[in-house]
Amino acid sequence: MSIMEPDLHKLKISDPFLGHYQQLVRDVVIPYQWDALNDRIAEAEPSHAITNFRIAAGQEHGEFYGMVFQDSDVAKWLEAVAWSLCQKPDAELEKTADEVIELVAAAQCDDGYLNTYFTVKAPGERWTNLAECHELYCAGHMIEAGVAYFQGTGKRPLLEVVCKLADHIDSVFGPGEQQLHGYPGHPEIELALMRLFDVTQQPRYLALAKYFVEERGTQPHFYDIEYEKRGKTSHWNTYGPAWMVQDKAYSQAHQPLAEQQTAIGHAVRFVYLMTGVAHLARLSQDEGKRQDCLRLWDNMAQRQLYITGGLGSQSSGEAFSSDYDLPNDTVYAESCASIGLMMFARRMLEMEANSHYADVMERALFNTVLGGMALDGKHFFYVNPLEVHPKTLKFNHIYDHVRPVRQRWFGCACCPPNIARVLTSLGHYIYTAREDVLFINLYIGNSMAFPVGEQELQLRISGNYPWQEQIKIDITSPVAVEHTLALRLPDWCDAPHLTLNGETVTGEVRQGYLYLNRRWQEGDTLLLTLPMPVRRVYGNPQVRQQAGKVAIQRGPLVYCLEEADNGAGLHNLTLPADSDFTVFEGKGIFAHKMLIQAEGYSRQAADAGHQPLWQYDRPPTARQAQTLTFIPWFSWANRGEGEMRIWVDEVKA
Amino acid sequence: MSIMEPDLHKLKISDPFLGHYQQLVRDVVIPYQWDALNDRIAEAEPSHAITNFRIAAGQEHGEFYGMVFQDSDVAKWLEAVAWSLCQKPDAELEKTADEVIELVAAAQCDDGYLNTYFTVKAPGERWTNLAECHELYCAGHMIEAGVAYFQGTGKRPLLEVVCKLADHIDSVFGPGEQQLHGYPGHPEIELALMRLFDVTQQPRYLALAKYFVEERGTQPHFYDIEYEKRGKTSHWNTYGPAWMVQDKAYSQAHQPLAEQQTAIGHAVRFVYLMTGVAHLARLSQDEGKRQDCLRLWDNMAQRQLYITGGLGSQSSGEAFSSDYDLPNDTVYAESCASIGLMMFARRMLEMEANSHYADVMERALFNTVLGGMALDGKHFFYVNPLEVHPKTLKFNHIYDHVRPVRQRWFGCACCPPNIARVLTSLGHYIYTAREDVLFINLYIGNSMAFPVGEQELQLRISGNYPWQEQIKIDITSPVAVEHTLALRLPDWCDAPHLTLNGETVTGEVRQGYLYLNRRWQEGDTLLLTLPMPVRRVYGNPQVRQQAGKVAIQRGPLVYCLEEADNGAGLHNLTLPADSDFTVFEGKGIFAHKMLIQAEGYSRQAADAGHQPLWQYDRPPTARQAQTLTFIPWFSWANRGEGEMRIWVDEVKA
Repeated sequence: MSIMEPDLHKLKISDPFLGHYQQLVRDVVIPYQWDALNDRIAEAEPSHAITNFRIAAGQEHGEFYGMVFQDSDVAKWLEAVAWSLCQKPDAELEKTADEVIELVAAAQCDDGYLNTYFTVKAPGERWTNLAECHELYCAGHMIEAGVAYFQGTGKRPLLEVVCKLADHIDSVFGPGEQQLHGYPGHPEIELALMRLFDVTQQPRYLALAKYFVEERGTQPHFYDIEYEKRGKTSHWNTYGPAWMVQDKAYSQAHQPLAEQQTAIGHAVRFVYLMTGVAHLARLSQDEGKRQDCLRLWDNMAQRQLYITGGLGSQSSGEAFSSDYDLPNDTVYAESCASIGLMMFARRMLEMEANSHYADVMERALFNTVLGGMALDGKHFFYVNPLEVHPKTLKFNHIYDHVRPVRQRWFGCACCPPNIARVLTSLGHYIYTAREDVLFINLYIGNSMAFPVGEQELQLRISGNYPWQEQIKIDITSPVAVEHTLALRLPDWCDAPHLTLNGETVTGEVRQGYLYLNRRWQEGDTLLLTLPMPVRRVYGNPQVRQQAGKVAIQRGPLVYCLEEADNGAGLHNLTLPADSDFTVFEGKGIFAHKMLIQAEGYSRQAADAGHQPLWQYDRPPTARQAQTLTFIPWFSWANRGEGEMRIWVDEVKA
Repeated sequence: MSIMEPDLHKLKISDPFLGHYQQLVRDVVIPYQWDALNDRIAEAEPSHAITNFRIAAGQEHGEFYGMVFQDSDVAKWLEAVAWSLCQKPDAELEKTADEVIELVAAAQCDDGYLNTYFTVKAPGERWTNLAECHELYCAGHMIEAGVAYFQGTGKRPLLEVVCKLADHIDSVFGPGEQQLHGYPGHPEIELALMRLFDVTQQPRYLALAKYFVEERGTQPHFYDIEYEKRGKTSHWNTYGPAWMVQDKAYSQAHQPLAEQQTAIGHAVRFVYLMTGVAHLARLSQDEGKRQDCLRLWDNMAQRQLYITGGLGSQSSGEAFSSDYDLPNDTVYAESCASIGLMMFARRMLEMEANSHYADVMERALFNTVLGGMALDGKHFFYVNPLEVHPKTLKFNHIYDHVRPVRQRWFGCACCPPNIARVLTSLGHYIYTAREDVLFINLYIGNSMAFPVGEQELQLRISGNYPWQEQIKIDITSPVAVEHTLALRLPDWCDAPHLTLNGETVTGEVRQGYLYLNRRWQEGDTLLLTLPMPVRRVYGNPQVRQQAGKVAIQRGPLVYCLEEADNGAGLHNLTLPADSDFTVFEGKGIFAHKMLIQAEGYSRQAADAGHQPLWQYDRPPTARQAQTLTFIPWFSWANRGEGEMRIWVDEVKA
């Protein structure tokens, strides 16, 4: 059964919670990031990204500045703008974006090549360092932007630019004798080419994606061949000379995908690659690649995923570690990895109608992705720890990558524009529109319409997710439409309840979706109740870092303790196994958000004076009752610097 | 009151436990390390240290190989040999050592300079890179060897070599206009010059040590000056170009000692520096430096010391972190740092008769120092974690420095010969011989004699420390001697009991020592009973990594759980707050060692099958009774690779 890409023109987000985020992206994030791309933010690291394009276009003289993948920030910004314009027209913004697109087109070489780093800085070195230099990665992001801008605005110029770019790449790479048998160090082009195939239906784009996926990790190894050929030069020396060439697992290029058993290496590269592979597997009906996706998803989600939807247990290589190694304080959990996880989950859902993928997608969105941006829309986390002790960060180098508060911008600014583009394209995640079934994955308030045969199924989701338990789905089609709706029953909800026009509906539940076939017509109302008791979460016993501990979750939201509410020394707070929880609405920055309290204990020092490092026979602390206040983890560090902790020691009452 | 250096010729170690270690050092470690220094150990990294001296002496052609401080391994080996010969003559070993000393003398330049790296590899670069290049460090170790060889064998050739070397250094460094106003990146020369002053009584050696200490950290900064002067070249780039020059706190050179408030930087450098400063403070009656020692000791011992006597919370820079940051798994705790801690404690004891210093010294010796060497004397730890999960080590780079089993040798082989020299010179630590009092710090079985005025106080300590509670001290002087004995009452012992010739003695206790003045004569017998119940140790509430946990100690020995006895998943074992302990003698490698058992619990997985990463409402584990077996931590990893853990979750019964 074929999957239709939701037409985001038809989507109106009306969600009180995420709608505010979308507005924030429109009103604050997109303008802010435009300023950043143009180096107009005084306190932030310069970007130079727009200037690089101007120089490449011959409109300005100067040197390239920034990361080898600096172009991608512009592409991601354009994609966010595309989705934003699609939902809320903004003539001035569109004009700015059109000008950027003209600039991008001007920076494109006659043969279709497009990359300001190489055009400006190293024109002779095109395609000589696939392992390290992100040319195909930047191309992929620009292709995504081209697709999105076409889908979002109907305008073709950027689509034409990226088709020309893709065609150029297609001429350079392939099995031919005169072609390069290479593939990117940082996957991205694969998923982008699949999106380009979706809108153009040009088989060569799917074939090229397939080539990149299948060539990956074969012997003799392309990264070694190009390394020799270019005289063993290396762009990155972070962990030693040519470490990206040496450590092929970092780029998931250590073996062919069919042989790979575990999620490994750089977490963002992994989820980007698998997003493309899942899309390709479905459209090419490739059972082998489908099995690769299932196997590697399982390893990732069953052994290496954080409760926050975070991926990447370690800073070194921004990478996975090994099964069940999930440190809370030294974790990397890059914002982009959780965005990539949403994309991977989306493509898995399109392949397999199993709510597990939506559960993970939701977990990533409502925890790490939202948490990656401050409530003001102007500060961002790159790294998303589950536990922070700010006083120690600058002294112990195992925490070098951790920041106790969100930063204004980054020298490597992949995360902020990535958050912006995902928050503006939520329609891709809310629904999976299969020819025969409309799957509702996320209960974000919106109205939307889908073609069903010659007709259109229109519906509106309302409620106040994830804070309130009731979700209303109104059918708004003026003409009755027979179709199947499949409502996701979240894994965190034990007792979902559904009524149709006031009558309880049981329906058939398959793989976490409740299927309802009916001739839907205006006035039909589904009322889905997802009870949201506070739930204790317990880790797998193989996870050392969670032993004896408990985490608090309500709905899809993971909660945490913060110093601002609970004082310093969060490691000394304990939660009795039988304590009750109180859920209440917060104030100030927590207005319209639900907070949680429970009666717990604090291990208070028996005397406050100077104490030795250890003592015999009796703990230096006495147990004292203390009310523990938990806030939604995504909203931590919005009140200045302080300790934060998700996993809390659980004790007997 | 002046302190006398114990004459190790008079010492006979008869201790059943540490005596075995001394024998191991004589029979296995010294010959093994001699083979290592001569590159005769097939599986080990080559040392080349002896060859470097041959090349420098013009006896062989070739290139220098190894670390810039490779010479120091030879010096430390010579020191171990000196102390070993002093206690047990060995003509063949002495001949070998004499030949090495001839070789060292031959490698010395006419002006007294001695360093094979610079002589062979970079003769024009002498004294151009104090911050990074260990010339004064190597000199210090050779001076220590010269002093020890003279003290241990009465032979002067190496002492003459090192006096000539020290005199050369004295001519190069100093306040004079033509002199360098520098000091070493790695302290060591300071403590060595103080030892050289002890045997030679040449004031210029004390003055030079004083110069090095007082010049340290002053502005304009010498490391910057020499860096500019040599054209900004850098020997080490581990953490970026010239990082040792940049990060002056790494070498405790960021500010003058008098301004320094915390133990900071490279842990070995810190304790080596402070050993010299404490020695200097006492002999120069410098109250300012005494206060520096007290202040920095306190910060180290009250805020940054592991229960194992380990120092250095992090791998990066092999360094201290900050107050109360004591991770168990990512800790560095270099063996050499605990050896340096013993040396620092020894000098503090000579300055202040406070048993606290001896408590720390004992803790370091019986835990990290002994633990640094395998029971076979042929394998060594450089890094001494308090918790290891071997399966994760090679996947998560925060553990890159951790080895799950001891190694045969190291490219940077500072630790093995350091362990050898400290184990052969235990007499320096057992006693502090002040003119008016003989302090007994450690209850290691031995016989010894000390001059008291014109007479000699002879005594014999026997028992089976640290396994048995009773220590016997027999006076063996044929002629009665009036003197004060001061017996350390260990901090881990609540109820020490002492009899003199069968009668209970109370005596006066001051700062942890029990003082007994008497006319001692042959036949006097002190019987000290130090009850050794198993004690639970609780961390300071500010230490996050010990919250809710307990450690087990008996006598001075810290115990641990090992996978070999308790199965995998040690993080799931818990110890009830009220469980009793059984102490029993072990078998096999634990023969003559006391093991401990307690009834505890295991968090067993409710079902053994494939489990998700987390689950709601109920833990996936059920509490099952399990007998926990604790072994002395110093003896872990002698049964192959497996998990190990000191701090265990304590639970209500």
